[in-house]
This record gives sequence, C-alpha cells and structure tokens, in this order.
Amino acid sequence: MGGDHGPHVTVPAVTNYLDRNSDVDIVLVGLPDVIESELRARGTALGPRLRLRPASEVVGMDESPALALRGKKDSSMRVAINLVKSGEAQACVSAGNTGALIATSRFVLKMLPGIDRPALAVVLPTMQGHTYVLDLGANVDCTAEHLLQFGVMGATLVSSVENKTRPSVGLLNIGEEEIKGNEVVKQAAELLRDSGLNFFGNIEGDDIYKGTTDVVVCDGFVGNVALKTSEGVAQMLSTYLRQEFKRNLLTRLAGVVALPVIKAFKRRVDHRQYNGASLLGLRGIVIKSHGSADSYAFGCAIGRAVDEVSGGMLRHISERVAQLQHHSRKTPSHSQPLPESLLP
Amino acid sequence: MGGDHGPHVTVPAVTNYLDRNSDVDIVLVGLPDVIESELRARGTALGPRLRLRPASEVVGMDESPALALRGKKDSSMRVAINLVKSGEAQACVSAGNTGALIATSRFVLKMLPGIDRPALAVVLPTMQGHTYVLDLGANVDCTAEHLLQFGVMGATLVSSVENKTRPSVGLLNIGEEEIKGNEVVKQAAELLRDSGLNFFGNIEGDDIYKGTTDVVVCDGFVGNVALKTSEGVAQMLSTYLRQEFKRNLLTRLAGVVALPVIKAFKRRVDHRQYNGASLLGLRGIVIKSHGSADSYAFGCAIGRAVDEVSGGMLRHISERVAQLQHHSRKTPSHSQPLPESLLP
Repeated sequence: MGGDHGPHVTVPAVTNYLDRNSDVDIVLVGLPDVIESELRARGTALGPRLRLRPASEVVGMDESPALALRGKKDSSMRVAINLVKSGEAQACVSAGNTGALIATSRFVLKMLPGIDRPALAVVLPTMQGHTYVLDLGANVDCTAEHLLQFGVMGATLVSSVENKTRPSVGLLNIGEEEIKGNEVVKQAAELLRDSGLNFFGNIEGDDIYKGTTDVVVCDGFVGNVALKTSEGVAQMLSTYLRQEFKRNLLTRLAGVVALPVIKAFKRRVDHRQYNGASLLGLRGIVIKSHGSADSYAFGCAIGRAVDEVSGGMLRHISERVAQLQHHSRKTPSHSQPLPESLLP
Repeated sequence: MGGDHGPHVTVPAVTNYLDRNSDVDIVLVGLPDVIESELRARGTALGPRLRLRPASEVVGMDESPALALRGKKDSSMRVAINLVKSGEAQACVSAGNTGALIATSRFVLKMLPGIDRPALAVVLPTMQGHTYVLDLGANVDCTAEHLLQFGVMGATLVSSVENKTRPSVGLLNIGEEEIKGNEVVKQAAELLRDSGLNFFGNIEGDDIYKGTTDVVVCDGFVGNVALKTSEGVAQMLSTYLRQEFKRNLLTRLAGVVALPVIKAFKRRVDHRQYNGASLLGLRGIVIKSHGSADSYAFGCAIGRAVDEVSGGMLRHISERVAQLQHHSRKTPSHSQPLPESLLP
C-alpha cells in the first residue's frame, strides 16, 4: 500500500513504469477500493499488464513486525510476498514498514541455506559511479561469518546486475592497516581474504564515496549510521548553499544566473535515483523502497527489482551461497580459497 | 614536530596565534635546528612568550604507538606531554601520530579515576551551530559504561567551553525507539537515562548535522566511520559542484558570477575551523590536530586548547568523573539519579 503516501505514489509510479517498459507486468496488491479509485483518478484501467490482487489489511509504518506477521495474514505486504513464493510474481517491491517486510519475507520465503538473516543492500553514488553497501540495518550484531556472507552476496549482486565479473569488495573499518578495528572486523578480514572474492582489504568511511570498491561490507549498525550521517551532511550542505544564494539581492541574482548549474548538480546528486534497497539472502527477490519515496523514486525501486530479475540474481546468489556453505563445511579453518566457481 | 608538514606549519600557526592573543605563551618542542631555521625563515625570534624546549627524537606518523612509547623517551611528543605533567604547560597540542599520542598521554599523564581509556571528542558543524561527538576512534570495543563516561565527559566539555549549563546528550543509534540498536547501546541508554545528565535519548546519523543535541555519544568505531563518511560525502559534493560549473563556457561564466557566493559557502563549511580533537579522561589537556592540518587549521587547534584551559575543563571533568565513580560505587543498580552536583 505504498509506505507513507500509499497508492497515491505507487499507482502513478507503476503506470509510468509500464508505459516506458513493455516487457514488464505488474500486480498491484492492497485494498481494492483505494487502488481502484486511484486508478480512476488517473484515467488508468487494469489490464493484462496491470493486475490487481486484493488484500484486506495494511501493515502500519510503526507497527511491531512480530504483531504484523502474526496478526495480519491478509496484509498487502504478506499477499505480495506470497505471490513471490508461489512464483506468480518474480519480485516484490514495498515502501512499507522495514521490520515487518524483513520478518514477513523471512517467514514466507525462507532464507537461503547458510544465511541467517536477510541483509539490506543499497546503492550509493561515488566519485566514479556508484557502490553497493551492505548491511544497512537489518543486522545490528554481526559475526565475522555474517560479514563474509555479506561480501559474497554483495559481490554476486553486483556481478548479476552490473555485468562485472570480479567486483572488488572492501571491509569498512577505521583504518587501512590490518591491525585496525574491532575483533569481529579483524576476523572478517581474514575470512574475506581467504574467500576467493576480489577482496580489496580494509577501507574507511570516505572510501565509500571515493568509489574505492564495488561493494562495501559492514555490520548493519555501522552501515545505517553511515547512511543516515551521509544524508545529514548532504542536507546541511544543500541548506547552507541555498542560504548563501538567498543572502541579499546580489547573491539572489547570482543564484538566477547559476540556476541551470545548480539544477544539474541537484539532478546528479538526487538520492531518489538510488531508491530501493535489496533484501539479500532470501529465496526470492524483495526490494524495500524508502517509506517517503515519491513516484519517481518508487519507479527507481521497481527498476532495481527488474534488473535483479533479468540479471538472474536469485539463481547466482543461491549457487554461490550454497558453494560457500559447502566450502565452509569442508574447510572449517577457512585457510583454503573458495572454488573458482564461487567467484562472481 | 607537527604531523605531516612539521614546523613549516606549526611555527607560522604559533606566531600568528601569539600576535592575535596577548594572554597566551607557547613552548615549541622538537628538534632545535629545524625549529630555529623555520623561525629564522619567518623573521621571528624566541622570547618570553615563545620558548623552545629541545627534543632529540620525532615519532613517525606510521610508527607503532607501543614502540614509540618504549623506544623514544626524548621524542617531541613525549617531552611536550611531560611539560603538561610537570605543570610547566597547561595543555599540549600535537598534529602527530594519533595512536602514539593517546598511548603516551595515557602513560605520562594517567587517566582520571574511573575512566579506562581516553576518548577523542571533535566538534562538527550543524544546521544550528555545532555539536561535540565522541568517541572518534580511540575506543573500538566499548561497553555501556564507556558510553556513559563519554556522555559525562562530553557534557562537561560543552558546559566548560560553551557556557551551557545543561548540554543535551544524544546516543547515536539506528532508530529513535528504545527497542532499537545493539545490546551495548540499549544498556547505555538505560545508564544515560538514569545519569542525571540532560539525556535526549537515541538519535540517528542525520541528527548529528541537524544539531539535535549538544553532545553525540557513540563508540569509537561508529564515530570514526561517521566522521570519515561525512568527509567523503562533502568531498564528493564539492567535486560535483566544481565539475558542473566547469562543464562549458556558459557554466563557467555562471561560476564567475556565483563566485562570491560559492566562496562564502566554502568559508562556512571549511572543516579547518573544526580542527582539534580533545583527548578526554586524562589528568591533563591534550589536543590532537589533524596530521595534514595547515597553519590556519593548526591555529584553530591551539585555540581549542586555550578555550579548554580558560573554561576550567580539567577541573570540571575531574570533579564530575569522581562523582560518577562515587555514585556508581554506591548504586550498582544504576537505578538512582546522579547527585545534582554531577550535572554539568
């Protein structure tokens, strides 16, 4: 039902997406009255490429994930994930309650063997393009093995959707030297070094935006703080810039002259184009859109789901995680490199 | 000997500072030849307000802190900290090796009773002014009690140098709700809630730059990642902005018109004015300047040391930490608020 703004955002996002992409079908899931009235208001009709699957309940944005899971078996979120489980849909995109989405996806779709909990991966812009960062908050107390799993899943995601054969993986730390960091991170570095992945080594916070590696691995607490802090800095800088251009008549005039440049700059750093976090480690593709996404941003999240489906992400990640599990059963010392086929 | 750039940066910073502040005396510590030649080159002479204390060794920027501590007893860093120990100087400012500075300060000055390790506190700009964040990397595996100590020390620092009677303290977490975060952070929230500090509660990464609280408490790993990530975002955005203004002849012309505004913006976000991290929890005042600081930035770090001395920071922090220790001995359950006198 579309997060903070509901079908008011998701319906136009979906119809725009269908207009621009003829090879995708979409199923809207939720309260039929609300969705149909939104469709009518936009002069859009259901059809073979845009279907409606009714659901009688909606999970609130602040509702307890456990309660939502137990108490709302006919929620739009649950019904949408059921469609992925049954194979009727190849991916689910939701702007709803993050905790409930993770809990419900995990319960309905189940985890891939050897993965404990889903990880949230987001794309962030860099000086050189973009990078994939995981985990972003689904796992707040990670072991070294979790960080290894994030590395494998992140690298597989990048190789699936970006056509990079050997994506580089960095481990977020507080220094580049091997002796730096806490115990979990030091152990994770050893596991990653022996994993056969293209492991770059430790990286620092500024390396995320330098684009030092294709994948950045960190625990969910650190990743969430890094992401939110980034948003805060960007927000502050753009407020400062606006204030400076509004200081007096002369600076306002300069602002008019510089407007096309400022607009180009804003388009380039528009975070909406990076909307859509991938829930990795599940037996199905689930994309979490920001709750406050507008229709453009929600469309970007749909695009991400389509990219993962067409890149065969789920098959690749299942294969690699299975090999990882097989490998770690055979070599508990982690001293042997992973088989070549595990490399994305 | 001044970090990456040596006396080439510190000597002009010091002479500029002395010219502008008649109530401060400074002792330069280091290799006499190098310092004297730098003074000569700048046409400055030693005198009653600018003295030289020779030291025969220099700690390298990448040297092991333990080796520096054991092997270089006459390093400029060690001699400078000795001056604080003996009372000959009231504060030490160094742009040198961070690990060595922490280890040497701890060894020479000793910790305040009840504090395990020094914490690094920095000032960061916010939408509303600035905020103090600690720890920034001195402690990578923190307990809830450490985070409580950071809260007490940070609040005392702010009340000493900013004349705020009840600075607000936020705990960096991945959500505002009490149930969010890892176990250490949840426990720390309880301790802070019962501490008698003006505890705001959990805050998120973007709250740092919103200026939600006067003090932001976090473990050193998270704090370091947040700081470096912030630097990375700011760097990327300023590169993007420059690139957009250099795109073609028209945008270059717009850049010329907007130049005064861009310059005002840059002055406002100039990170050099925030240079100088406070090492808290020691029986003496030590300020860590960024290793790559230029002369303006190093001057800001000197100013920070002077503010802490004139604000009576060391006396205040000693009193409050002693009361904290006394309080926690009496009330191991942490269920009772701290005595009123502990409140900054």
